[in-house]
Amino acid sequence: MQRILSAQLTTRVGETVRVAGWVHRRRLLKSVAFLIIRDATGLAQVVVADAAVRAQVEALTEESTVEVVGTVTANTTAPAGVELTAPTVRLLGAPAEPPPFDLYRPALTASLPTQLDHAPVALRHPTRSGALRVSAAAVAGFRAALDAGGFVEVHTPKVVSSSTESGANVFALDWFGRPAYLAQSPQFYKQLMVGVFERVYEVGPVFRAEPHDTARHLAQYTSLDVELGFVTDHRDVMAVLRDVLAGMLSTVADRAGSAVATLGVDLPVVPERIPELHFTEALKVAGAPADEPDLAPAHERALGEWARREHGSDFLFVTGYPMAKRPFYTHPDPDRPGYSNGFDLLFRGLELVTGGQRLHRHTDYLAALAERGEPVEPYAGYLDAFRHGMPPHGGFAIGLERFVARLTGAANVREVTAFPRDLHRLTP
Amino acid sequence: MQRILSAQLTTRVGETVRVAGWVHRRRLLKSVAFLIIRDATGLAQVVVADAAVRAQVEALTEESTVEVVGTVTANTTAPAGVELTAPTVRLLGAPAEPPPFDLYRPALTASLPTQLDHAPVALRHPTRSGALRVSAAAVAGFRAALDAGGFVEVHTPKVVSSSTESGANVFALDWFGRPAYLAQSPQFYKQLMVGVFERVYEVGPVFRAEPHDTARHLAQYTSLDVELGFVTDHRDVMAVLRDVLAGMLSTVADRAGSAVATLGVDLPVVPERIPELHFTEALKVAGAPADEPDLAPAHERALGEWARREHGSDFLFVTGYPMAKRPFYTHPDPDRPGYSNGFDLLFRGLELVTGGQRLHRHTDYLAALAERGEPVEPYAGYLDAFRHGMPPHGGFAIGLERFVARLTGAANVREVTAFPRDLHRLTP
Repeated sequence: MQRILSAQLTTRVGETVRVAGWVHRRRLLKSVAFLIIRDATGLAQVVVADAAVRAQVEALTEESTVEVVGTVTANTTAPAGVELTAPTVRLLGAPAEPPPFDLYRPALTASLPTQLDHAPVALRHPTRSGALRVSAAAVAGFRAALDAGGFVEVHTPKVVSSSTESGANVFALDWFGRPAYLAQSPQFYKQLMVGVFERVYEVGPVFRAEPHDTARHLAQYTSLDVELGFVTDHRDVMAVLRDVLAGMLSTVADRAGSAVATLGVDLPVVPERIPELHFTEALKVAGAPADEPDLAPAHERALGEWARREHGSDFLFVTGYPMAKRPFYTHPDPDRPGYSNGFDLLFRGLELVTGGQRLHRHTDYLAALAERGEPVEPYAGYLDAFRHGMPPHGGFAIGLERFVARLTGAANVREVTAFPRDLHRLTP
Repeated sequence: MQRILSAQLTTRVGETVRVAGWVHRRRLLKSVAFLIIRDATGLAQVVVADAAVRAQVEALTEESTVEVVGTVTANTTAPAGVELTAPTVRLLGAPAEPPPFDLYRPALTASLPTQLDHAPVALRHPTRSGALRVSAAAVAGFRAALDAGGFVEVHTPKVVSSSTESGANVFALDWFGRPAYLAQSPQFYKQLMVGVFERVYEVGPVFRAEPHDTARHLAQYTSLDVELGFVTDHRDVMAVLRDVLAGMLSTVADRAGSAVATLGVDLPVVPERIPELHFTEALKVAGAPADEPDLAPAHERALGEWARREHGSDFLFVTGYPMAKRPFYTHPDPDRPGYSNGFDLLFRGLELVTGGQRLHRHTDYLAALAERGEPVEPYAGYLDAFRHGMPPHGGFAIGLERFVARLTGAANVREVTAFPRDLHRLTP
């Protein structure tokens, strides 16, 4: 008999079926015992009246994997309106040791560090697995939106000969006797691939040796990277980002609706045109001094409130950040050279995405490095490609864990990461 | 005027349009000049009669990025039956330095090392970019087949506290003062995630400090990993692999048809049921001694010929490899304990995929490690999960670059990898 999933039970009333899953909970009443089985699609209630089967169920432990054959019976008081009656129960594998916290309660009561220490078990809780389902759906939506736009997926090196973003916060390793570093971003490679495919994206791990132990930082996270050529300026990049975000949220709704409901997530609507403010205007709206070089978290919150109040939008573009605060490959605003063609996207008052137009002329790169007093040599392999014809281009990167944390209201990115890596954590 | 792509020209005859791309080639005849523009979708021919525009075209260099506005004119002798006439040409960015090899010839004549040294330019050649388009389509097909089967995508750590597969061939790094290693595979994590989602997959980089400089080995490659729970044995895993392969090849045909044609790839058909041989039978078919512990490349070739001859199949499963040759987490064949529930998939006489059923009882893991004389401690975090209820499960891993190389007939995996990493190569 083919196994069916708990979600399929409602369509099989009256039939004898086989289900399998984890022992989620047992309730041993006087006259009857209830065995709740958890599988990939939800819960199934099994009603045990027979004394021999009851003895078996009494001996079971939570999280043991079992197989149950029984009759699907309608019962309006059962969880999904159906339950399994007259069951036989078979243990798969070995009896489980009870986990260090109860998985059947609505919320995980263990502290976050305890959950992370026991991640393989903690992730079985619907709130933790739900966040990872949202994450998977968001990535699927990211790819679908870009595939529809003619982007090609690429895979680039995660070990590089020189640090890509700045000298700080890199992990060093020994590469067959030579010094090497874990890639902090696929920035240079995605730019080079614009020369091949015009439009590319990558979903992959990036590594930052963050010495700060905060709720927002991970030493490994999943970066959703996009880069496109033949743009007029950063506005073409922002238009793609708008469509990508809409695609991500729509796929989350489609594919992870049940997880969204479990987590009580209020999915935002992406406006057809996301409101935008130039950096200089954003400072005024946030009530910041006009000579501030960057936006502080309090400014971002004020801007989030402004966007909601004035435009009914959870999203806000801030454009034209000062060049001094952006990386050397940033393209300046031709009309206001102290300001950049770079942007941030704020989501509910928090920075979610950074992007912009990049330099595309070899000579401009040399000038930008010289102006910052940085040597050319570490970037030689990257810069050489710009000698051979690169179109105006730009792109952006979304940190997957931050996106999911903000979307689901998680206070810590570690709640939405299966096995986080940080200053203290290298296991499990 | 909105830019259109070269592939759209045939639908716009008589209209004035804007195209943009790279100067692929120029042909300067006496009466007329031809400018061939390459963009993401192919080539566009521009006919230049005007003296001033001709002077501009004469000054252009190959690989410069340009924008052309002209009239779409039917011409049966032009590449796609259309060309652009009465053009204006505008340089985007700076004039390009000519690349170190000609990109407009049908084949790249530079040696592979030279191509790899100049990868950002070499990848622009249709044979190189075509292989990467096949690769992107194969991954898309992999995901689509698994999404349809209820699998959830996961992202797991690429830095681990102990080596996952064996002590050898790992890259060591300094993790905030602690020793750590680049992950050789997501093997343990995907098994743990079976406890959460039942069925999972991951597409991500894996790292092997391969000291061998061969045409088949890379120090970083992209692993397509799958794991599923509640299996009866390895046959359930093989059935999923069969469908995944069919999905990959069908998506390659759908999404990368033009690249398949450019590369002259003969896409194989995946039989509804891939033929299979037990290891002991495979030795006989290959004419190998009955006490051989593994299949040598010559045996694999002989088996490939047998599968084609006897079953008309490019694919062959070999099952039941001896336990001694499989990793410690391999599940033995309950009926023949010296042999495993592990399998390889041969594609045209070469091993393409390794997979099998895994152990799922904590005590079995302890016994397996003891039998091999391996300590438990490095695996403690992984093994602990098996105390808390794990179903019978199994999975497989496909090396993306090997798959694409064999599919496209590339002699070296480096031909189908954008920026390969190996014993000698850490740039670009």
